[in-house]
Amino acid sequence: MLIFALDTSGPTAGVALNLDGGTVYEAVVRNKLTHSESIMPMAEEAFSRAGFSVKDTDYYAVVTGPGSFTGVRIGVTAVKAMAHAAGKPCVEIHALEAMARSAGYPGGFVCPMQDARAGQVYAALFEGAEQRLTDRPAALADMLETVFAQAGNRPVLFTGDGMLAHRDEIKDLYQGVCLLAPAESCFLRPAAAAALAAERTDRAVPDANLHPYYLRPPQAVRQRNLVERYG
Amino acid sequence: MLIFALDTSGPTAGVALNLDGGTVYEAVVRNKLTHSESIMPMAEEAFSRAGFSVKDTDYYAVVTGPGSFTGVRIGVTAVKAMAHAAGKPCVEIHALEAMARSAGYPGGFVCPMQDARAGQVYAALFEGAEQRLTDRPAALADMLETVFAQAGNRPVLFTGDGMLAHRDEIKDLYQGVCLLAPAESCFLRPAAAAALAAERTDRAVPDANLHPYYLRPPQAVRQRNLVERYG
Repeated sequence: MLIFALDTSGPTAGVALNLDGGTVYEAVVRNKLTHSESIMPMAEEAFSRAGFSVKDTDYYAVVTGPGSFTGVRIGVTAVKAMAHAAGKPCVEIHALEAMARSAGYPGGFVCPMQDARAGQVYAALFEGAEQRLTDRPAALADMLETVFAQAGNRPVLFTGDGMLAHRDEIKDLYQGVCLLAPAESCFLRPAAAAALAAERTDRAVPDANLHPYYLRPPQAVRQRNLVERYG
Repeated sequence: MLIFALDTSGPTAGVALNLDGGTVYEAVVRNKLTHSESIMPMAEEAFSRAGFSVKDTDYYAVVTGPGSFTGVRIGVTAVKAMAHAAGKPCVEIHALEAMARSAGYPGGFVCPMQDARAGQVYAALFEGAEQRLTDRPAALADMLETVFAQAGNRPVLFTGDGMLAHRDEIKDLYQGVCLLAPAESCFLRPAAAAALAAERTDRAVPDANLHPYYLRPPQAVRQRNLVERYG
């Protein structure tokens, strides 16, 4: 079973191929180009390097968010198109879950964090596969308190680009045992998204049912709502 | 400062680019082709995707072993050639150290393990950047005892393709708290090799001084020695 996974939800763009549960290719780029320029050549390289054809793909997985609005839409649109053309089903992957899995820490709590600007973070807490916190955006200090309430004195591995943006504050503010993932491990690994997809092909959906996952409406919609409400 | 890193020491082939300490590109493949077919196209794709030219490279890093004899020689030869042509220095990276760093576990002991066949493993033990065990090949049970003597009751994250090959035996035999890295995190990440290289450019050597690092002589040499000794 061959799974193609794509992620453009965050600051990196990445693709991976998972064959029967094992990664056979993974590439991640963080360049100055927009994700839309990077991903199709990267998809082509994935198949070519791993020795497969696009037609061998059984499932298309994509990180549907939360993340950058434009990035999420680029990823979802690209995977919808590929899956539609091939007549193959899609698997939706949650960005924070893939980020937690990317940390590769099987022993305890992992707290993946995205920077939500304005002093806020999106975060979740995982213990193995079990999710312990919903990923509502909150002020960093409040989020750290909520994490501590769950984890107590057990160590928590903080990861994600949100952690990198708030590294020193987390060290200062977190009351429990705080581990900080090294910078090069903080980004979402498409191989982790592909591995999650391999475990949940039973939840696959047709491409038409693939939707971006936003935690709040896009800036443009929020602005329109404000204009409608207050003129 | 741009660092190009290459690894062909194990079952995967990988390349990475590190710019001023941060990963800008990483690709890893595990295909049925030999590493020598994969790496030059992958190197080209790294520069092209990340928006750099080969000429921008300041240092060439390579995983010099231990690992597969052929793989290690392919990697060292390729990097020697690239660095020589560009007149740029090289950084040697130890496979087990890069494997430990790949695990991204900042909090405690990491035991990267390679399968050395015949019931033996190569392993090391790291606590953060500090190496606690040399990487001499040993029988799995003896190695686990040595690890336990160092780590005591603190958890140890086992990783590497050697761990994957001996997953169940490690669970049965290890007396301490044993964490097993998920399969997709068990392989050496070229981005980890590049990150290590970025921290030790002061130890860079000219390409002529770049040498493979073998723990035991190649099969052919061992056979010749036997023939010389016993006819």
